[in-house]
Amino acid sequence: MSATNLPPAADSASGATAPQFAVVGIGNALVDVIAHASEEFLDAQDLTKGSMTLIETDRAVELYAALGASVEMSGGSAANTMVGVASLGGKACYIGKVNHDDLGDVFGHDMRAVGVPFHGGGVDHGTPTGRCVIVVTPDAERTMNTYLGVSSSLNINDLDDTAIASGAVLYMEGYLFDRDDAKAAFRHAATVAHANGRQVSLTLSDSFCVDRHRVDFRSLVQDSVDILFGNADEIQSLYEVDELDEALKMVGRECGLAVITAGADGCVIVAGNEQIKVSAQPVDRVLDTTGAGDLFAAGFLFGLTSGLPLAKCGEIGSIAAAEVISHVGPRPLVDLHTLLTDG
Amino acid sequence: MSATNLPPAADSASGATAPQFAVVGIGNALVDVIAHASEEFLDAQDLTKGSMTLIETDRAVELYAALGASVEMSGGSAANTMVGVASLGGKACYIGKVNHDDLGDVFGHDMRAVGVPFHGGGVDHGTPTGRCVIVVTPDAERTMNTYLGVSSSLNINDLDDTAIASGAVLYMEGYLFDRDDAKAAFRHAATVAHANGRQVSLTLSDSFCVDRHRVDFRSLVQDSVDILFGNADEIQSLYEVDELDEALKMVGRECGLAVITAGADGCVIVAGNEQIKVSAQPVDRVLDTTGAGDLFAAGFLFGLTSGLPLAKCGEIGSIAAAEVISHVGPRPLVDLHTLLTDG
Repeated sequence: MSATNLPPAADSASGATAPQFAVVGIGNALVDVIAHASEEFLDAQDLTKGSMTLIETDRAVELYAALGASVEMSGGSAANTMVGVASLGGKACYIGKVNHDDLGDVFGHDMRAVGVPFHGGGVDHGTPTGRCVIVVTPDAERTMNTYLGVSSSLNINDLDDTAIASGAVLYMEGYLFDRDDAKAAFRHAATVAHANGRQVSLTLSDSFCVDRHRVDFRSLVQDSVDILFGNADEIQSLYEVDELDEALKMVGRECGLAVITAGADGCVIVAGNEQIKVSAQPVDRVLDTTGAGDLFAAGFLFGLTSGLPLAKCGEIGSIAAAEVISHVGPRPLVDLHTLLTDG
Repeated sequence: MSATNLPPAADSASGATAPQFAVVGIGNALVDVIAHASEEFLDAQDLTKGSMTLIETDRAVELYAALGASVEMSGGSAANTMVGVASLGGKACYIGKVNHDDLGDVFGHDMRAVGVPFHGGGVDHGTPTGRCVIVVTPDAERTMNTYLGVSSSLNINDLDDTAIASGAVLYMEGYLFDRDDAKAAFRHAATVAHANGRQVSLTLSDSFCVDRHRVDFRSLVQDSVDILFGNADEIQSLYEVDELDEALKMVGRECGLAVITAGADGCVIVAGNEQIKVSAQPVDRVLDTTGAGDLFAAGFLFGLTSGLPLAKCGEIGSIAAAEVISHVGPRPLVDLHTLLTDG
């Protein structure tokens, strides 16, 4: 692993300069509101365990009122990933939209505090900073109810093209790929990245997201995505196939690289016709699965932008994911680079 | 312990009705901003470990900017105590002042979520909800920097006399005994409590608070306080004596009951000329001492209002304190009543 952990400079033939960041992420900037509750609470509130549901103000108020005492901490899928990259020793940058309110201040602080420059979008939005009400059941599963607030109104004007141009890999979060403005922002960001000789990655985030926007996701993946992250449900939904093997073959033809996670079963890395399986790291006690996929992506991208072999990238992803599921909260509690035993 | 855990009805000769609450608390309503940091951070920021320092907006902004990623959760000394009483199975009520902002919403939610009615004071205050920036060092000590915000402007109009009249014990937090309006509110609350045949308790909170307002604290204790909570520093500061024994004698003459905590050495309960020592509960690993005194008071008052012997009250206090110092955060993570092995 290089001393700087920055990726090698791009091919000089492309005319691109050395990247300033290993990864630049774009996603829904959310503060997590985390509370423990029983299975009965999920039933009473008509919540489907493990799902992510978008909620409006009224429902957010109702659900929060029914919920026990909570802890607030910064979250957001791609934001968690950028924090993970930084914790591993890589340089990361994040673009997401917040309001100038208490939760927006908290979000921005927590990114900058771990050395991740944060672009919070235009100023004085009338809509509050988004929040994700996460119910953690005794089996450590998290059920998410997201009030997107101002986060989902991200548009081209909220992007920082200079930052995107200087990240070796652009990382975009499928959750945000919902409104037309955000879809246009994703395409613009991908264009900027490619024009500067960078790679473009996407996480599918959620099979319901894929269901809702399958045609647009397919076209984004075909046209612009070099590295795709997802789990079995998401990738099968993308290609509308019942068998994972079939989905893996299809993604191998469309993306240079795809990484399909499978929880305790580890992951499969698809590079064209080649498939590499990587085991999950053992965890003594899983306390909260929130952030597992986010931190896996962080580890994988850190490895990739450090020039490591794909199997090693998957292993670092598994190490980062194992840390975050061993405690409550979506971000690492230790400096992840201390968990990497070799260099 | 009675099934309801409500205190016995007041002496019918006093004409008072049975109390609705075991304890009604009044204090600074604060949201805690908790971050881990090194001893070097304390030095660099000129912070005295273990102290509580009041800070203004500029310093709050500066300190927060220097601090690492944080977790936000509801705190406030007397508020933590009321949550502890509720967690033990007692009925508690809380009066404190917040603004209608994100942190104020969080604070109110977290009280109501554990069954503690919350009176948040008058509406539409221009000053933000207060927050306490807590730096936890590797030795589990907490160093507090409090931006009081609207919490310290509590005055008589923010009180709920009906609630105070219906609490077997009124519990007031010394931290709030600072501005003249708040001092007047304390005296008024004590008058209301006594007029309804209730007991009045006070925690000294901090030796610097006592230093700043010694004359007023002394007169409040002499005139109105039936049960006094404090540690050795605080009680010696109150009576301006160098020896704890001397302070214990003095408080025995002024208060019906005083409870002096001494961390790992347990506590001394002073009832007139009698002194009862109670050991601290063993703790495997102390992670964060925030809330130790608050939860001790909760356990003691729960025992007292349940009609238990003083030594047993001290023991329950120690059990509640032991739980809260074994994890990060100032409020219990388990239902404390499950930790009480006998009835």
